[in-house]
Amino acid sequence: MPIDPNATIEITSFAWVPELARGFVRDLRPRWACEEAGLGYAERLIGFETAKGEDYRREQPFGQVPAYRDDEVQMFESGAMVLRIAERSDKLMPEGAAGRSRVLTWVTAALNSVEPFVFDLVDIDTFNPDAEWGKLRRPQVIDNLRGRLAGVSGWLGEKEYLEGDFSAADIIMTTVLREVSDDALLAEFPNLIAYRDRCMSRPAFERALNAQLASFAPEPVPA
Amino acid sequence: MPIDPNATIEITSFAWVPELARGFVRDLRPRWACEEAGLGYAERLIGFETAKGEDYRREQPFGQVPAYRDDEVQMFESGAMVLRIAERSDKLMPEGAAGRSRVLTWVTAALNSVEPFVFDLVDIDTFNPDAEWGKLRRPQVIDNLRGRLAGVSGWLGEKEYLEGDFSAADIIMTTVLREVSDDALLAEFPNLIAYRDRCMSRPAFERALNAQLASFAPEPVPA
Repeated sequence: MPIDPNATIEITSFAWVPELARGFVRDLRPRWACEEAGLGYAERLIGFETAKGEDYRREQPFGQVPAYRDDEVQMFESGAMVLRIAERSDKLMPEGAAGRSRVLTWVTAALNSVEPFVFDLVDIDTFNPDAEWGKLRRPQVIDNLRGRLAGVSGWLGEKEYLEGDFSAADIIMTTVLREVSDDALLAEFPNLIAYRDRCMSRPAFERALNAQLASFAPEPVPA
Repeated sequence: MPIDPNATIEITSFAWVPELARGFVRDLRPRWACEEAGLGYAERLIGFETAKGEDYRREQPFGQVPAYRDDEVQMFESGAMVLRIAERSDKLMPEGAAGRSRVLTWVTAALNSVEPFVFDLVDIDTFNPDAEWGKLRRPQVIDNLRGRLAGVSGWLGEKEYLEGDFSAADIIMTTVLREVSDDALLAEFPNLIAYRDRCMSRPAFERALNAQLASFAPEPVPA
């Protein structure tokens, strides 16, 4: 547990990715949620060719990972999976409509109000480091992201987690914050660094990260 | 109904926005969901200064709209609100875990796997039409968005809606698709245009859009 070839939960991920993506592929999110919830999951590892194929696109229309199934449902989108896993556990979601709506709110905020601005920076720093447009654009991207981080930081204040106890929202927000590719920017928000590190120091995170890293073949998988 | 000053649902929106944003502010989403569900909602209209203030940021940490409350919960993030409204109705979400998880998946997909790529195009076409970086960057933005639209189009095929009957997922996906600022790109996917128009022709959409448009003051509101 939680990796268990006989588990009813199955998480599909890549059998190989380049070095720079290791530890950041989004199956980390449902893996982490399963670890927190104590729910076993089976791994299904696929190659890029399979991911692009028509069969797999019926499971994951964008040809990405992760995909997810359990004894009742079949899903894609890591954020939705974490909410699904949270439903099956008392570890990732408070009881009662008020608390649950707050967690849902913050999961959505991380996915739609913060991560797109982190994407924009990663797109320049990691994927287009020498592009002229990136050099021209980067200051504005930093400013936009600063505004979003300020919003999260202002809300968080001295709180340990976004909403009461550790929840599904902290899984998503932490995985978003650790993608920020400008350390100086993040250093403007010490409470966000402390928060991210607090979440990443959880044993369940470490197990999930190690499980993802251990799943990659050393060389590209042909299909 | 659904606009009802005495309703327990309250949706906060801007009292004024510039012409180009009218009809696209995200309170359209929970308004539309309330119209579909037949749930009354009260409007609370605020100015930009109020939105930026500390008090409002305790409700909406990014100083944006919409904010939402009902008799049980207080939320921000339009995607999360639509899911909340869907929970209180049988019109926007199927019964049973399997169908509900599919709707949750597609809401998340629209917010995290499609809208960020639409944002990138809008950022150039609407907000930075003369920027040099935008001219250099635009072809790549179009290619990225084309890939995402192809994923949605491939899934949709000849289906009327993303998952069975009209659902919360179609509200979010339609509002994302109608933001695409390149008609020629969208024209590559006739089934997406037909789908978007099918959803936008629903009387509930028209009522929600008209309600948003009617809510704006003709001149900027001072606070």
